[in-house]
Amino acid sequence: MTVEPRELRLACPVPLAQYPRVLLAHGGGGRLMHQLIEQMFVRGFGARPAGERHDGATLALGAERVSFTTDSYVVRPLFLAGGDIGTLAVNGTVNDLAMCGARPRALSVGFILEEGLEMETLWRVVQSIGRAAAGAGVAIVTGDTKVVERGKADGLYVNTAGIGVPVSERRIAPASVRPGDVVLVSGDLGRHGMAIMAAREGLEFESSIESDCAPVHEPVLALLEAGIEVHCLRDPTRGGLATTLVEIARDAHLHVEVDERTVAVREDVRAACEILGLDPLYVANEGRFVAFVAPSDAERALEVLRAHRVSAEARAIGTVEAEPGGQVSLRSVFGSRRVIDMLSGEQLPRIC
Amino acid sequence: MTVEPRELRLACPVPLAQYPRVLLAHGGGGRLMHQLIEQMFVRGFGARPAGERHDGATLALGAERVSFTTDSYVVRPLFLAGGDIGTLAVNGTVNDLAMCGARPRALSVGFILEEGLEMETLWRVVQSIGRAAAGAGVAIVTGDTKVVERGKADGLYVNTAGIGVPVSERRIAPASVRPGDVVLVSGDLGRHGMAIMAAREGLEFESSIESDCAPVHEPVLALLEAGIEVHCLRDPTRGGLATTLVEIARDAHLHVEVDERTVAVREDVRAACEILGLDPLYVANEGRFVAFVAPSDAERALEVLRAHRVSAEARAIGTVEAEPGGQVSLRSVFGSRRVIDMLSGEQLPRIC
Repeated sequence: MTVEPRELRLACPVPLAQYPRVLLAHGGGGRLMHQLIEQMFVRGFGARPAGERHDGATLALGAERVSFTTDSYVVRPLFLAGGDIGTLAVNGTVNDLAMCGARPRALSVGFILEEGLEMETLWRVVQSIGRAAAGAGVAIVTGDTKVVERGKADGLYVNTAGIGVPVSERRIAPASVRPGDVVLVSGDLGRHGMAIMAAREGLEFESSIESDCAPVHEPVLALLEAGIEVHCLRDPTRGGLATTLVEIARDAHLHVEVDERTVAVREDVRAACEILGLDPLYVANEGRFVAFVAPSDAERALEVLRAHRVSAEARAIGTVEAEPGGQVSLRSVFGSRRVIDMLSGEQLPRIC
Repeated sequence: MTVEPRELRLACPVPLAQYPRVLLAHGGGGRLMHQLIEQMFVRGFGARPAGERHDGATLALGAERVSFTTDSYVVRPLFLAGGDIGTLAVNGTVNDLAMCGARPRALSVGFILEEGLEMETLWRVVQSIGRAAAGAGVAIVTGDTKVVERGKADGLYVNTAGIGVPVSERRIAPASVRPGDVVLVSGDLGRHGMAIMAAREGLEFESSIESDCAPVHEPVLALLEAGIEVHCLRDPTRGGLATTLVEIARDAHLHVEVDERTVAVREDVRAACEILGLDPLYVANEGRFVAFVAPSDAERALEVLRAHRVSAEARAIGTVEAEPGGQVSLRSVFGSRRVIDMLSGEQLPRIC
């Protein structure tokens, strides 16, 4: 008798003795999430997703190239100062396309609604999505709606996927980063994460901290259209600037050195972080990006960025060196130097 | 004093006295879902999504056209005879692209995982996704992972979005349907919904009913490549064949007449439906499609379909007439004729 090996079971590639179940930290953007992606998803999906652990993928479709990305949004609470789950869902996906060097063109919107959600809450979110899409110049072209029973979601979750058209032939990826590259950051850091904390129960800061949630494709596309030699782009969302830089340093096998004095953090954000024992370098942003550019273009790149409101405070924060590869080091305000790593999990669950 | 109308609130367009909260039926694919889309989403997103209430949208990107679609999957239970949430998530989106007349090219996968989900369960689903994608010839190119706290999801939800390339210039849409068109269905109906019922607690039928979950793009593309004059395509998922036909009849402002004797329903499926008081015409399918074709091409279309295993039992079930527009009527096995409508909600929540 032959048994058809129709459902050949491979052993689970995640070490089950250590991680028998999914932890919140597996969604945190840190080391555990990267391990889950590398150990399980890359293996189970049959290949490394194109785009080398990037915010999206770019593929050839006949004569054209198209960039394609997706994110689900589970942020809690749904509404916070400076944004809500709807604006996040649009701007987050617009920004992921921008990080591919692509002009965002169209979005899909997929809702998972909890039975009993107030219709007016849904309407507020729908309006936010509509306004944010109009603001970013993208069309919402397709969608889906599912409803699950009471207690099987948390009000609502939303997924957006997006497609866009790359504006240059340049390969924007960690593999393009070179020693000598200058690291630019488009503005101050840590506001989104602290706005979430402020919106959650029991936490009030002296001033109101608004999320930095915003679309950043205009300054990014302006860089590319100005012919700036952009090597890599990434938005420091979950895991913050530190995690983003570690990801790129590892994938590029290069060293990134950051001068802490040049990293802008608003005073109220810094104070809130201190109260909560958080490091602003690990706090999520939703309207910021990091650009690795050729040294000869760094000054001109800053000029281009500063002409756009969302990146008016752009500055250079570090440089790329050959050794020691795969590491990020931070020169502190006191002159000391320390290696920074990604967090194992995350500081705040459900930040986006 | 002027007040900046920064967040001008429009009144909620869904009648709140009647529907103050989201109901399970709003996700059921029936009348309430259509109302929610028409009243709220189309309005809030600023425009009717392209593709006129279709399974996806097709846009021009430079010299090429691209089809784009999304679906979230919340099926309960995660595993059932003939498929699981992973195979559904791939085949469902592959099929939505096929319904646009497009060859599926790439998928995104976005997970929302519940804290505490068994890692081995996730691995089973990941493997199913990988196998189904390989089977359908699509690449998984980008993804996202979120984790929510225990009790804030139901194991896991997954969203897939997909992009594909239309294989013909033909406009495949209800507006292309003409009086005289022949309505083809690719196989027997109702198996997916009944497999769900069998897999849920306390329901056992005499035989094992397997979901019909399967990719259908090959026979669909074969129709188009054979030059068959295909006017409209749709897969009868949530809401079943009846809802699908009503959608098309309304959008086309034409009449669809179906001969009930020609609609294939397996004996065990029919028996299970009778026990549960369900009408198989409203039960979901995940590996079937409806094609409206020009009458002169109907015979040849059936030949093309029957050459593919997934549509080997294809048959003609009805025709299109001019009047009375917007209606579907069913000529029963006893010769009587009745108008059929979409359900208000759905028969079974969380079917896909």
